[in-house]
Amino acid sequence: MIGIDDNEFIRGDVPMTKQEIRVLTLAKARITADACVADIGAGTGSITVEAALLAQRGKVFAVERKLEAIELIRRNVEKFSVANVEIIRAQAPDGLNDLPELDAAIVGGTGGQLDEILSALNVKLKVGGRIVVNAVTIQNVAKTLDWFGARGWTLDACQVQITRLRHVGQLDINQALNPVWIVAAEKIRGGNTGRHG
Amino acid sequence: MIGIDDNEFIRGDVPMTKQEIRVLTLAKARITADACVADIGAGTGSITVEAALLAQRGKVFAVERKLEAIELIRRNVEKFSVANVEIIRAQAPDGLNDLPELDAAIVGGTGGQLDEILSALNVKLKVGGRIVVNAVTIQNVAKTLDWFGARGWTLDACQVQITRLRHVGQLDINQALNPVWIVAAEKIRGGNTGRHG
Amino acid sequence: MIGIDDNEFIRGDVPMTKQEIRVLTLAKARITADACVADIGAGTGSITVEAALLAQRGKVFAVERKLEAIELIRRNVEKFSVANVEIIRAQAPDGLNDLPELDAAIVGGTGGQLDEILSALNVKLKVGGRIVVNAVTIQNVAKTLDWFGARGWTLDACQVQITRLRHVGQLDINQALNPVWIVAAEKIRGGNTGRHG
Amino acid sequence: MIGIDDNEFIRGDVPMTKQEIRVLTLAKARITADACVADIGAGTGSITVEAALLAQRGKVFAVERKLEAIELIRRNVEKFSVANVEIIRAQAPDGLNDLPELDAAIVGGTGGQLDEILSALNVKLKVGGRIVVNAVTIQNVAKTLDWFGARGWTLDACQVQITRLRHVGQLDINQALNPVWIVAAEKIRGGNTGRHG
Repeated sequence: MIGIDDNEFIRGDVPMTKQEIRVLTLAKARITADACVADIGAGTGSITVEAALLAQRGKVFAVERKLEAIELIRRNVEKFSVANVEIIRAQAPDGLNDLPELDAAIVGGTGGQLDEILSALNVKLKVGGRIVVNAVTIQNVAKTLDWFGARGWTLDACQVQITRLRHVGQLDINQALNPVWIVAAEKIRGGNTGRHG
Repeated sequence: MIGIDDNEFIRGDVPMTKQEIRVLTLAKARITADACVADIGAGTGSITVEAALLAQRGKVFAVERKLEAIELIRRNVEKFSVANVEIIRAQAPDGLNDLPELDAAIVGGTGGQLDEILSALNVKLKVGGRIVVNAVTIQNVAKTLDWFGARGWTLDACQVQITRLRHVGQLDINQALNPVWIVAAEKIRGGNTGRHG
Repeated sequence: MIGIDDNEFIRGDVPMTKQEIRVLTLAKARITADACVADIGAGTGSITVEAALLAQRGKVFAVERKLEAIELIRRNVEKFSVANVEIIRAQAPDGLNDLPELDAAIVGGTGGQLDEILSALNVKLKVGGRIVVNAVTIQNVAKTLDWFGARGWTLDACQVQITRLRHVGQLDINQALNPVWIVAAEKIRGGNTGRHG
Repeated sequence: MIGIDDNEFIRGDVPMTKQEIRVLTLAKARITADACVADIGAGTGSITVEAALLAQRGKVFAVERKLEAIELIRRNVEKFSVANVEIIRAQAPDGLNDLPELDAAIVGGTGGQLDEILSALNVKLKVGGRIVVNAVTIQNVAKTLDWFGARGWTLDACQVQITRLRHVGQLDINQALNPVWIVAAEKIRGGNTGRHG
C-alpha cells in the first residue's frame, strides 16, 4: 500500500509534506523493493516511512538536523513498524559521506545548501539512480533544473497544484494547497561531472 | 514500486490516465496486498496493471467495453507479467453483478452511467472499502460528490492540476495538463442506502 | 485605469473578491462607458467601484443585504469618488424588480438563491447583455453552467487559479489563492425562456 | 471597456497573449488615461491596442522586431481605431533609447535579452512607474524576480493558471492553458542602481 493519510502520522510543529506530494515524490523516485534510499531533510519522517514500506528488503537513511524532528521520525518509524530505517542526525551535506551507494535520494529540505547536497548525493548515487527534489520556491526550482541540466541528467519535472474539497454545510468548499515542484532526475553514465568536468 | 512511466505502457488511440493521476488514484484507493479491486472503464489497463502490482496476493477485475481497449489491457497485463488480473468485456454497470466482494473500485470512465455504476459497486463493496472516481467535467464531479454525500460516505476529494516542465533548447517550457478531480470515498456502516433509504 | 489594489479598499470582516478575480470578472462583463450594471452580493463594493469607473457615463446598482457591507460600500464609493452608484439594501432576488434595463450583471454572492437571481436578472437584461457569475463551489459552477446551457446562452467560462509570490527573506514563497470559476454568458435573442419555455 | 476577445484580433501565426493574461497584465501595469507606455515584444499588438484604449490621452510605443508581427500590429491598431500608438521596428533593447519618459512598460517577449531590456527600460521609467513582465519559463521568472529584488523595487507577482471550460456535447470539458507568471514591479526613489550601485 502507498498513500498513508497525513493525520495518521505523529506530527509536532514540524512541517510535513502533504500526502499527494509525498505519493508523487515516491513514485518519481521509483523505489524498488531492494532499494537503498536517502531522505534528506526528513522532517516528520512521513516520506521516510513510506519509502521504507516500498523498499521492503532495502534500506532508508533519514537525514535530519533538528532534534524535535528526529524524535518525530523515531516515533513514526515505530508507529508504522518499519525496521529498515536508519536515522542520521546531521545538517546535510554533512553526514552524506558515510552513506552507502544509493538507488534513490529524496531532497525535501536543503537549508540553503542545495548545490552541496546534490553534489554529495551525486557521489553516492548509482548510474540509473534517481534524485527527486521537492521545491517550493521559484529560485530553488530554477537552481535544481540548472544543476541537473548542466550534468545532462534525464529530467522528469512537474508542478503540482492540489486543491482539496472540504465540506462546509451542504457545500464543497475548495482549499488550494501551495504549488510544489517535483523535480526528478536520473543519473546517466558519464554525465556526472558537471559543466566544467 | 509504483509509478510506471506513461510511455512504458503499450498504447493505441485509447486515452490513458496520466502517470501522476494514476499514482494519486491508486494511493487514494488504499489498495492493500490482499485487496480485491475493480477497475471500471479500464482503457489501456494502466491502472489495472499498477493496481495488480499493489494487490500482489489479491485480484483486479478490469471492466471495459471497447474491443480495442480490451486488447491493449491484455497486452499490458502480459508486458508487466501480472497474473492476478481478470478482464471483463462489458459496458458497466453490466458485468458488475458477477464480481465478488470488493475492497476498492476505481471508476475511470462511466459512459454516462455514473449513478448506475456507483449503485452497482455499492452492492459489492465491503464496509470500509473505497471507491475512487476520476472526473474531468464539472458536472461529473458535482454528481459524484452528491452521490457520496447523500449516503454519508467519508469523502477525500481533490482537484489535481499538473504542469509538466519540458526542455526546449536551454529553457524549460511548461505544459499544463487538464485538471482532474479525484473523488475518493469510504463506505461507512449503515450509510449505504442513499437519500431515500 | 483598472485594477485597484486590494488594500486600497476599506475592508471590514466582509469577504472581498481578490484583485485578479475582480479584474477578470469586470473584463468578462464587457462594461462599456454607458453601461447599466447590477452588482449582486456587492460585499465591500470593490467590484461596484471598479464597475462604476468603467461605466463612466452609465450606472451601477449595488445590491447587498448585510448592513455592515452596505456601510463599507458607501465608504468605498466615497473614497473613490464614484458618483454613478446606487446602493440597494435587499436580499436578491428581492430588489431586482425595480432595476432598469441592464447591460451587464455580476453575481458575487447568491445566498443560496442562484436560480431565482438568474431568473430575475434575465428579465432585466438586454439581448446581447452579459451575466458574470463568480462561483467558488463545484455545485454552484455546475448549476450556473446548467442554467445558461438550458437557455442556449453563449458561454465564456474559466477556472482561475492565482498563486501569489511573497517575499520571505531572500526567497519568494508561493501562496495559492483558492480557485474561482468565472462563468460569463451572453443573452441571445429568443434564448431566454429556458428548457421548458 | 477592457477585455477584448482573443478572436476579435487579427492573428497570423504570431503567438498572442491570451485574453485573461492580457487583462491581468494591463491591470498590474496600472495604466492611467495620460500614461506613456512601452510594449516590448508586442507580437500581434493585442496588448498594445488595449493599453492604447486605457491610455486615451497618452501614448503607447509598440516595439517589435518581426516584420510579420509589425504588419499585424498595424492592422489591429487600425481595426480598433487607436490613434495613440507608435510602432517601432527594433529588437529590444535596441530602439528603447529613443523613447520618452515612461509611466509603464510591459515586457512580453525578450529574445533572451531580459537583463538588457530591463536596464534600458529602467533609464526611461519614472519613479513610481511600473514594469510588468510576462514570463512562461521558470528561468525567466527567477531572473526577473532577481533583477527587481536586487534593486529593491516593490514587487507584485503571481502565477496565473487559467482553465477554460468548453462545451463538448452536453458536457463541459476543461482545457488548461499553460501557466504564466505576471511579475509587476514599481520603481522606487533611489532604488534604481542595482546590486553594485
